[in-house]
Amino acid sequence: MGKIAIDELRNISSLRYERYTVPGIKDLPIAAKKLLDSGCDIVITLGWVGKTQKDLVSYLAMSVGLITVQILTGKHIIDVTIHEDEAESERDLLIVAENRVREHVRNAVDLLLNPKRLQRLAGTGQRQGYPDVGPILK
Amino acid sequence: MGKIAIDELRNISSLRYERYTVPGIKDLPIAAKKLLDSGCDIVITLGWVGKTQKDLVSYLAMSVGLITVQILTGKHIIDVTIHEDEAESERDLLIVAENRVREHVRNAVDLLLNPKRLQRLAGTGQRQGYPDVGPILK
Amino acid sequence: MGKIAIDELRNISSLRYERYTVPGIKDLPIAAKKLLDSGCDIVITLGWVGKTQKDLVSYLAMSVGLITVQILTGKHIIDVTIHEDEAESERDLLIVAENRVREHVRNAVDLLLNPKRLQRLAGTGQRQGYPDVGPILK
Amino acid sequence: MGKIAIDELRNISSLRYERYTVPGIKDLPIAAKKLLDSGCDIVITLGWVGKTQKDLVSYLAMSVGLITVQILTGKHIIDVTIHEDEAESERDLLIVAENRVREHVRNAVDLLLNPKRLQRLAGTGQRQGYPDVGPILK
Amino acid sequence: MGKIAIDELRNISSLRYERYTVPGIKDLPIAAKKLLDSGCDIVITLGWVGKTQKDLVSYLAMSVGLITVQILTGKHIIDVTIHEDEAESERDLLIVAENRVREHVRNAVDLLLNPKRLQRLAGTGQRQGYPDVGPILK
Repeated sequence: MGKIAIDELRNISSLRYERYTVPGIKDLPIAAKKLLDSGCDIVITLGWVGKTQKDLVSYLAMSVGLITVQILTGKHIIDVTIHEDEAESERDLLIVAENRVREHVRNAVDLLLNPKRLQRLAGTGQRQGYPDVGPILK
Repeated sequence: MGKIAIDELRNISSLRYERYTVPGIKDLPIAAKKLLDSGCDIVITLGWVGKTQKDLVSYLAMSVGLITVQILTGKHIIDVTIHEDEAESERDLLIVAENRVREHVRNAVDLLLNPKRLQRLAGTGQRQGYPDVGPILK
Repeated sequence: MGKIAIDELRNISSLRYERYTVPGIKDLPIAAKKLLDSGCDIVITLGWVGKTQKDLVSYLAMSVGLITVQILTGKHIIDVTIHEDEAESERDLLIVAENRVREHVRNAVDLLLNPKRLQRLAGTGQRQGYPDVGPILK
Repeated sequence: MGKIAIDELRNISSLRYERYTVPGIKDLPIAAKKLLDSGCDIVITLGWVGKTQKDLVSYLAMSVGLITVQILTGKHIIDVTIHEDEAESERDLLIVAENRVREHVRNAVDLLLNPKRLQRLAGTGQRQGYPDVGPILK
Repeated sequence: MGKIAIDELRNISSLRYERYTVPGIKDLPIAAKKLLDSGCDIVITLGWVGKTQKDLVSYLAMSVGLITVQILTGKHIIDVTIHEDEAESERDLLIVAENRVREHVRNAVDLLLNPKRLQRLAGTGQRQGYPDVGPILK
């Protein structure tokens, strides 16, 4: 997923990036902490999560950790997680994954450079990785 | 839901507000931290949560994060979350959502300006977003 | 439940108290933090929790938060939670609730003034809100 | 369970101890923190946990809290928890409980005085409170 | 599992190591904290987790604790956990365990000495302890 993220980032901005690969999703919080401490303004984490209860528990630990890092550093981390049970077929899952990565890269860039765009989209049913469902609350 | 919150706030007070939109509910804790650090006295978070186990886990991570931010800043965050499985139809869900937003805006204003009103309501069965159930403990 | 707690406190002690009402159980940790920071020696939280999975998750977030506040302040918080699925009928639930509030008020007073009494009761099957089950481990 | 722990401690060492009784398992983290801050080198917590989902959630909050206290103080806390669904009959549960308390007291003493013994036992299938299952990984 | 880890470490590097054995998985965070504070650059934790809900909850508490230690120390902890329900037979479980330990020792060494290798492997379906599933996202 890293290549897709870099591709999208180059499409929409000239921001510089650093890449940090870790063995598993529970290693993401410390990696994000190191990147933010070394001067990065935002981190996008890319994680792939299995279908078991154990995987969900690991996802929870990762999520709590990423939120803690944000609170301590005062910077955003955009967490892109793909859960293997989100689609029926592997082909559909790959489409979900690519779309979600691209949309969250745009979200991250917006948070840094153009926060008003996010506000305009709020409540219009944007779903990262799926067709949008349309507005439900004006 | 942001527009409803602002509408209610204007109805009942002349308090100033700032709006901060984020991509997902797990981004709320750092956004709330930034607002409180920049001088806001209270934050109302508005979140819409899906029906899956993964959504519930994300809600947990968000909740732990919001409580941590409150403990670190010494200020309240009023968390307004709508869970998609709270009502049978989308129409009912929208009614629940609007009512809950309005009631929690009043709660937030009371916490700042009129904490005695909350005390009078405690134990009278106020349910944010639903018809009240009446007192069960005097 | 606040009135019952105050009634029990007056029955058994002449300790002074302060009351702080919040909209929901997830608001309890920051309220407890404020009370402890302002000079209170102990806090008793009173919470009423619904039957859904979401309610249980909120209870977890609240519990982690209350423990964090205790660790940071070095003071006890006695958490009195009533779960709506603890009794068959509403009438039974009210009895459980009242008993539990009164017993935990006594526990809180003992922690401050008479910690040896708690030690004598340990392992004798005291169940806050229910008839005691008797000793199982000497 | 406190008496059993003290009995075992006296059997195998001349270490001094302090006893601190709390109303419920969620009160253990702050009690452990106070003991460690007042000069204790290690804490053994003894907890009895019911069978409901709510009890499991309280156990989780307690566990996270105890780990946080250890991280902040730099000292071990040995957590002895008996879950009521661990045995078929109450009689079996009492046997499990007593064995587990005694083995964990020995573990705590070893961590302080004889850490090499724990290393020799690792992977030999020691199960606190049950007959050992034998080695599965050399 | 400690012997396997040491064997693999010696096969691929001349790094020095220290070994710290604890009674249970919830004791791992404080042990890792002590090792990192005493000068270790990275910690590999080895844990064996049972099949019950209680075991999963303990795994969650351990995971949150290990992530907290990483955030506080700024160093990686590679967590190798074997869940007893990961394989049908004990024999298969042992194979999974040995493979996972060896692969994670290599991951830990790479994080310290050769982070680019991890990047090349990302998204190629490496599964610690199982046959690799092949790439799913280019």
